[in-house]
Amino acid sequence: MIKSLSGIIAYTVTPFRNDKVDFDVLYALIDQLISTGVDAIAALGSAGECAYLDDDEWAEVAEKTINYVDGRLPVIVGISELTTKKAVARAVLANQLGADVIMVAPFSYYPLSESEIYDHYYAISGAVSMPIMVYNNPTTCGVDMSAEFMLSMVSNIEQISMIKESSGKIERMHQIYSLSAGQVPFFNGCNSIALEALNAGAAGWCTAAPCLLGHLPKKLLNAVRHEQTELARTLFYHQLPLLDFIVKEGLATSVKAGLSIKGIAAGDPRRPLKPLDEQKTLQLSLLLEAYR
Amino acid sequence: MIKSLSGIIAYTVTPFRNDKVDFDVLYALIDQLISTGVDAIAALGSAGECAYLDDDEWAEVAEKTINYVDGRLPVIVGISELTTKKAVARAVLANQLGADVIMVAPFSYYPLSESEIYDHYYAISGAVSMPIMVYNNPTTCGVDMSAEFMLSMVSNIEQISMIKESSGKIERMHQIYSLSAGQVPFFNGCNSIALEALNAGAAGWCTAAPCLLGHLPKKLLNAVRHEQTELARTLFYHQLPLLDFIVKEGLATSVKAGLSIKGIAAGDPRRPLKPLDEQKTLQLSLLLEAYR
Amino acid sequence: MIKSLSGIIAYTVTPFRNDKVDFDVLYALIDQLISTGVDAIAALGSAGECAYLDDDEWAEVAEKTINYVDGRLPVIVGISELTTKKAVARAVLANQLGADVIMVAPFSYYPLSESEIYDHYYAISGAVSMPIMVYNNPTTCGVDMSAEFMLSMVSNIEQISMIKESSGKIERMHQIYSLSAGQVPFFNGCNSIALEALNAGAAGWCTAAPCLLGHLPKKLLNAVRHEQTELARTLFYHQLPLLDFIVKEGLATSVKAGLSIKGIAAGDPRRPLKPLDEQKTLQLSLLLEAYR
Amino acid sequence: MIKSLSGIIAYTVTPFRNDKVDFDVLYALIDQLISTGVDAIAALGSAGECAYLDDDEWAEVAEKTINYVDGRLPVIVGISELTTKKAVARAVLANQLGADVIMVAPFSYYPLSESEIYDHYYAISGAVSMPIMVYNNPTTCGVDMSAEFMLSMVSNIEQISMIKESSGKIERMHQIYSLSAGQVPFFNGCNSIALEALNAGAAGWCTAAPCLLGHLPKKLLNAVRHEQTELARTLFYHQLPLLDFIVKEGLATSVKAGLSIKGIAAGDPRRPLKPLDEQKTLQLSLLLEAYR
Repeated sequence: MIKSLSGIIAYTVTPFRNDKVDFDVLYALIDQLISTGVDAIAALGSAGECAYLDDDEWAEVAEKTINYVDGRLPVIVGISELTTKKAVARAVLANQLGADVIMVAPFSYYPLSESEIYDHYYAISGAVSMPIMVYNNPTTCGVDMSAEFMLSMVSNIEQISMIKESSGKIERMHQIYSLSAGQVPFFNGCNSIALEALNAGAAGWCTAAPCLLGHLPKKLLNAVRHEQTELARTLFYHQLPLLDFIVKEGLATSVKAGLSIKGIAAGDPRRPLKPLDEQKTLQLSLLLEAYR
Repeated sequence: MIKSLSGIIAYTVTPFRNDKVDFDVLYALIDQLISTGVDAIAALGSAGECAYLDDDEWAEVAEKTINYVDGRLPVIVGISELTTKKAVARAVLANQLGADVIMVAPFSYYPLSESEIYDHYYAISGAVSMPIMVYNNPTTCGVDMSAEFMLSMVSNIEQISMIKESSGKIERMHQIYSLSAGQVPFFNGCNSIALEALNAGAAGWCTAAPCLLGHLPKKLLNAVRHEQTELARTLFYHQLPLLDFIVKEGLATSVKAGLSIKGIAAGDPRRPLKPLDEQKTLQLSLLLEAYR
Repeated sequence: MIKSLSGIIAYTVTPFRNDKVDFDVLYALIDQLISTGVDAIAALGSAGECAYLDDDEWAEVAEKTINYVDGRLPVIVGISELTTKKAVARAVLANQLGADVIMVAPFSYYPLSESEIYDHYYAISGAVSMPIMVYNNPTTCGVDMSAEFMLSMVSNIEQISMIKESSGKIERMHQIYSLSAGQVPFFNGCNSIALEALNAGAAGWCTAAPCLLGHLPKKLLNAVRHEQTELARTLFYHQLPLLDFIVKEGLATSVKAGLSIKGIAAGDPRRPLKPLDEQKTLQLSLLLEAYR
Repeated sequence: MIKSLSGIIAYTVTPFRNDKVDFDVLYALIDQLISTGVDAIAALGSAGECAYLDDDEWAEVAEKTINYVDGRLPVIVGISELTTKKAVARAVLANQLGADVIMVAPFSYYPLSESEIYDHYYAISGAVSMPIMVYNNPTTCGVDMSAEFMLSMVSNIEQISMIKESSGKIERMHQIYSLSAGQVPFFNGCNSIALEALNAGAAGWCTAAPCLLGHLPKKLLNAVRHEQTELARTLFYHQLPLLDFIVKEGLATSVKAGLSIKGIAAGDPRRPLKPLDEQKTLQLSLLLEAYR
């Protein structure tokens, strides 16, 4: 069993065809991602429209992703359920299916208190046997967890061993690093500050960008690791227009549009999400040409 | 069929017993609310933990609430679904069950664009035949709809005829009133500014407070309507500590705790929500004594 | 000596001609304001460009305003100095000149701590013998004082007896009213929520609006006092477009432009402030026609 | 005449003794800063309490700093005046005194519009013959200038050739770098993100930290320049507790307290600023021990 992860964790989208998951396209995407040299595959994250799938769909995507990757790389499965009961159920299922790690966000209707979040994770931890990654994403969850609180969960809740930080605040990463003396692995979840996160000591970068940028995110990570400061800067600014675009326009929406431009028929995101409009699709096409 | 509403729209909680909906307690609560002189009953709002019920529970609460009220007052049913498909399904069901109005929030995982929100409401409107109330609640939905945008939906989408404004910004109500020349009914959804909303021309006040404050919210509304400025101010400041408390501690959590103090066994909210802790329960008890 | 104030406190602008204060225009403006039935005259507030005058100008405006009003109404003088030393000096001068009240803001370069603000007011209070109005304006001062803190200054610092609240948050006024049991007079300093402030128990409204709206602000205040709820609402929404305009475009800038449109040559604001541009001046002209 | 700058720009405080500037201490501080290997000396910035000095004091500090440095390093002089007239006067004086660069912030009472800011800088530029550094500091100036706007001033206003970015948003630096293709030198003005700024391409770091940290900021800058990624990270996290402390407690306040701990009698900041309290002084002492 893996204890931790590092490097580029590549997020898949969930391709649809006639509003059904299109597994052939998903498999093609997985193969393509693996070929770019990423270090892990993550299914059912924000980019994967986790919140818009029904139970059967979610289970099938988890199962088939794990089976198709088939040990070539570790597989992370994302869980963003509104009730603790459903979150536990999905965690147990992911465990049974053989996921290497689950990534859990405190998604909610009401913004949750720290005590409520703690108990939510505690319940999930008690039901599984693989590592849990705490996922802080204030934009989708309405709550911004402090470094102290996340680290207290890492210390006190058995399966929790990693943090994915998507608040976009580099200071949060400084705090995680400082307070844990660099011992708790944290991952960058905000594409727009990837260079900063890696320099600040992130163990890796959770991103859907390899779907569109291929091996470039891994090259950036390697440049930082090999202490090639200027090369890292050049690689980062080269990728930044695309990274900013997919963050601004929505991950599922823009990555699916980009895949379609690249000839991979990932379909549209699920309503209420709408496909990228014509003008922005043109803008994205022009952006993508720079990375051919 | 009613075209519009006004006055106090009283929100029920969804009582649980052993994690199952306790309809006897719900019926008792409905009777009590009706006895306080409120003008409508709203089920499955934020206070009703709409987002934490599964499909069967949601349907049963909607059906039994409508049947039990049985025409004594109009019934509003709240819809906060992540996908357009499920929102339409619940709207259709509410329609069939005989709800007088549905209240729809653009709840989402990703913050939605105006175009996405518009299409979401449009799809729902096309599937039902009763009035729709647009529900703006940035805290739970992650998106704050402008007055212009909400009014454009009132103008262009057939069934939409009312707005519930819960941003807490009184200026938003000024804008709705000014831009619509006072013609589009809007309701206050932020307990802490009830006095201001009513003075600014709100058609009514959507609130779970009657569960704990009985006829006091209606008395406040009447004081404003009868131009009793000083009485209204006195009534408002009298209620404000309780209103602030339930907003701050979470509606489902605090209203259930308060009902329990008052002898109505509404149970605990559903996890990840936690029951009010001991210290705050004591604080709430002391607050409630002022309203005996 | 007056102990407190109430009603409409009308703020003057500081008219310039060739970058010198034009006292003839100031006198005309004062006479006009008094004729509209306001309850006090306030010089050297934000609208009066207090921060942009040198020491001699400031002193002359204070002196001549007090002398020209000549007891017809109370006169408030605004103090927004960067150092405590200069603030004390101006306060002492205002006292000697016969100002009835000084209004003091914690204007600063660095945002100040509560302890620093307290000492600043304490030093001023020790140097004067007239009432001090605490002026909370986060937009210009970079610090937003809590209700608890302002009330602690009212309780503990001798001359402080009133609050001008310009944060624009109606909840702050609720807190001041609730925590002081309605005993500490507070004034609305945010034009856009005048109706709300008066209904929430404000002792009055500090505003430059009478420069352009004549007796209308006083009529609104009277309607609230006479419990004419609907009339108050009508009067408020009638004034709101102009109130919103002057807040949005800057008080000195827009009030001077409006006075010029009305035939009072108040000149331009002082650089870096710029006169209203052509398009907005046209917009203001059209707005003002509604109040003829 | 220098056209641009780079490296560590060290900010002095303005030492006081009996509320008068203590030039002997200032000279000692300047010598100490130069000995740490910094690349320029900056007087009369935020740390130098520029806004709290009267005209004579300001002029004397500018003059004596320039004369004492005497060409050993370039000298930057900070200008943060409320009126354009005074800002121009101080700029002209700095020019005559031989300052190498002036750093100008759009300090104001009212938040200024872009048009007002542009004209303010334009007037200053027309009056001087040395380079101007645009200083973006939303905390003290109440306005946050966009990258586009600042770059438009660099392009269109003759003397403006550099930007000091203190918004604390690393994305702003990304935008400056991207939009100018790395051609416009920008400096980090937010100590807490020094590592990020340097990696993102900043020409240097404007900071008062060398007053307390000696040669450490320069070592960090060199580590980034020499592509020593891990060393840079280690140096940054080593300095971060002190950097965070001085940002949080106020630059003038905390740097003066720290100098005093180190045996340099820089005195207290000027009221309303207060000296660091006892508990925080103890905390600062403990922090500083780590850097002996």
